[in-house]
Amino acid sequence: MIKFYDAPMSGNCHKVRMLLSMLEIPHEVVPVSLPNMDHKTPAHLARNPLGTVPVIEDGDVVIYDSQAILVYLAKKHGDEQLLPIDPEGMALVQQWLSYAVNEVWNGPALARAFLLFDRDVDLARCLAAAKTTLSILDARLSQHDWLALDRLTIADIACYPYAALAEDGKISLAPYSALQAWFKRIEALPGYVTMPGLGQQPGG
Amino acid sequence: MIKFYDAPMSGNCHKVRMLLSMLEIPHEVVPVSLPNMDHKTPAHLARNPLGTVPVIEDGDVVIYDSQAILVYLAKKHGDEQLLPIDPEGMALVQQWLSYAVNEVWNGPALARAFLLFDRDVDLARCLAAAKTTLSILDARLSQHDWLALDRLTIADIACYPYAALAEDGKISLAPYSALQAWFKRIEALPGYVTMPGLGQQPGG
Repeated sequence: MIKFYDAPMSGNCHKVRMLLSMLEIPHEVVPVSLPNMDHKTPAHLARNPLGTVPVIEDGDVVIYDSQAILVYLAKKHGDEQLLPIDPEGMALVQQWLSYAVNEVWNGPALARAFLLFDRDVDLARCLAAAKTTLSILDARLSQHDWLALDRLTIADIACYPYAALAEDGKISLAPYSALQAWFKRIEALPGYVTMPGLGQQPGG
Repeated sequence: MIKFYDAPMSGNCHKVRMLLSMLEIPHEVVPVSLPNMDHKTPAHLARNPLGTVPVIEDGDVVIYDSQAILVYLAKKHGDEQLLPIDPEGMALVQQWLSYAVNEVWNGPALARAFLLFDRDVDLARCLAAAKTTLSILDARLSQHDWLALDRLTIADIACYPYAALAEDGKISLAPYSALQAWFKRIEALPGYVTMPGLGQQPGG
């Protein structure tokens, strides 16, 4: 059975939680305490030299990076709806996986990490980046229901958590109506699981 | 024929240049001048809302983000050596594509952008990140010839340019012997093209 190294407040872990639930994949959760630095132990660094969560182990296969885990689970347990393999579809999904990795992480996610977890970041820079990041998502979603294609793909799952959690970083979501409508479409999907803390936030 | 929007000094564009050459894909280069702000014109923003290079157009298909372009070209013109589609292989490639997007970009690439192009970044933060980024690459490459699998994949092409150009950002590559050996393996590949300026740098 898949072992899933999971920290409750991590939006990156939430991507994995969502897809495991949506695809009904049996798995065992191994809790990782970030305050206790469980992610920097030698055992965890052997699984993932970056010392981050999530990580999954599936027999001998060990995968870190939340986008890579989405790819693994979608390819093994999902279908080409979630992760197409034609050149155009695959590339359009990758475009938004890259957006999750850089723009969404270095904007709203790090602003949240500063405010909730006291992470050492340049807050002004993260907040400015977050506005651009959310505006580009909102512009795309004002023309399309889903980010990469005309249906849900792992690109949506990769970009969702830290966009939806932006108000944890004191970033108002009020200007982004198309983004908010997309949150609602995702939250209505069969198997969707709520992010811990998300329900307590205005606009979340 | 594929149109390739290319800025000469961009390491992200160099990834695309390398794969176009290695796979001998016919294409037309459309030069983009970053000093002239060609990448922020309405015409370019219509192709890519992020206002970055590279971008490719292949008939009606428009792809931005260098990793997404590598995926597109490898899937359309390459084979499963460069981009596997089994769950584990695909996920391991994604792991290092994500590394190129975040760690390699926000470390050595942005330090270089500060020093060569006066880009507004926090240099001390980029330099510290670059050391970690290059150390993790070096540790991986001290155990394996290639990043993701036992052969060249697009993961290597995605991580190569800004690692090889690190000395543009005044980051010494001397401590990283496995990284330097990997540069030589890549530079010996059929179809490899030199990065403009790379030959002038010590250790490049």
